[in-house]
Amino acid sequence: MTHNELTQQIFSKQSYLCVGLDTDPRKIPHSLQNEPDPVFAFNRQIIDATADLAVAYKPNIAFYEAQGPRGWESLQKTLDYIPANCFTIADAKRGDIGNTSGLYARTFFDPSAAGLDFDSVTVAPYMGHDSVTPFLEYAGKWVILLALTSNPGSADFQRQPINEQELFEVVIETAKTWAGPDQLMFVVGATQADELSRIRELAPDHFLLVPGVGAQGGSLADVSKRGLTPNGGLLVNASRSILYASGGTDFAEKARAEAQALQQEMASYL
Amino acid sequence: MTHNELTQQIFSKQSYLCVGLDTDPRKIPHSLQNEPDPVFAFNRQIIDATADLAVAYKPNIAFYEAQGPRGWESLQKTLDYIPANCFTIADAKRGDIGNTSGLYARTFFDPSAAGLDFDSVTVAPYMGHDSVTPFLEYAGKWVILLALTSNPGSADFQRQPINEQELFEVVIETAKTWAGPDQLMFVVGATQADELSRIRELAPDHFLLVPGVGAQGGSLADVSKRGLTPNGGLLVNASRSILYASGGTDFAEKARAEAQALQQEMASYL
Repeated sequence: MTHNELTQQIFSKQSYLCVGLDTDPRKIPHSLQNEPDPVFAFNRQIIDATADLAVAYKPNIAFYEAQGPRGWESLQKTLDYIPANCFTIADAKRGDIGNTSGLYARTFFDPSAAGLDFDSVTVAPYMGHDSVTPFLEYAGKWVILLALTSNPGSADFQRQPINEQELFEVVIETAKTWAGPDQLMFVVGATQADELSRIRELAPDHFLLVPGVGAQGGSLADVSKRGLTPNGGLLVNASRSILYASGGTDFAEKARAEAQALQQEMASYL
Repeated sequence: MTHNELTQQIFSKQSYLCVGLDTDPRKIPHSLQNEPDPVFAFNRQIIDATADLAVAYKPNIAFYEAQGPRGWESLQKTLDYIPANCFTIADAKRGDIGNTSGLYARTFFDPSAAGLDFDSVTVAPYMGHDSVTPFLEYAGKWVILLALTSNPGSADFQRQPINEQELFEVVIETAKTWAGPDQLMFVVGATQADELSRIRELAPDHFLLVPGVGAQGGSLADVSKRGLTPNGGLLVNASRSILYASGGTDFAEKARAEAQALQQEMASYL
């Protein structure tokens, strides 16, 4: 999906909601436990209930890997089920030396490899340019690079002072020389709203993927005020607050209500 | 495997060789292509040919993931086949917020999850303490944290100046407060031999996993002179130079010769 197409989806759906598919088999309602693939059965109902409200879906790869080969099959089926007008993100936080990053890129971008054809993958910057550029060699695919994350440990290294900046700012400025806003986004945690304005100055045209609204406590209003651009420019992710809005048979209905509340708030900011 | 057991293996085998199982299906000899699982058939012969010369094996997870569910099955079989007296490393370079890192830890450490029971996993430090500590909650398991890697991009961020240090030094000093040398190692590229002495001063008792000898051009002599300790303290990895020493039916024999040359050189430094 191109930058323009994503912007069009945002204005057409009046939403910049990304639904994080952090699907934990231990949290799936009992009613689905006898399905041949409970994870996919759950995801399918979540997608059905939210696809008109969300512009993106973000399977968190750890949740699928932790199931071994079966988990990868659930992931393949889930990805195939996501409607074509939704942007897809493999939240994998990969990054390795060039030839290995090339294989991670194949894994998530080349359907003839692992049966997956994501639009984008999250990448960790620590290993530098040759750990990131192999993902950029796939035309039409995106890198979403970790900049300033939503977790407590983000302060340990990302906020270390380097000359007059902090590490996350050096990451953003350096990565901008590797790719433009048509192929590169940055991860900025919703718990880091104070820094969002600085990041928006550094990267005025890049989409920001913002996790941490909901279960992690970030404010949608603060994020939207600081991060929105005339092109949208934001994807705000919610995972647990939507997926596990109810643990009963009404989980999909409650997930929709939760997604709808976020979408309506987003519409008011657009 | 404990720190003491690993040291014993090093002195008993007179080797600190780690064989990197970066097994690329496209590089496997034709003679194995009709096996039901060519990747496992190849790995099994490599392991048979090198198990008395190597103290560790390091499957590079990207190579297995790029095959989808089938690749995870090859990985499970390979790990099960590695002899118990060899240390096993999942070279995965994972790292995410706490609950997600917890799932990556389950994936690689809890055999009831994905069928894998590695001794250790490589972890990227960018997201800080809560991205690393979930791996340390598994007694007897190890984190191998990226510090100064072997690739060209390592200069982009790892060598940024922070106060009187560079980022990789801040990573090492900070991570030492999270775990001792019985559960924490650091990745230091063999191409960074000049910095190895500084790293050895910062982490005198921690094992260092050193990739980059062989195909990437690092010198075993330089690394050994600067990195060895009275307890060994080093695992030096070679992947492509061993696995693909020959592309013919004699691949295992040539792999053994390559491993033996490294082991004999290592014995002379011990």
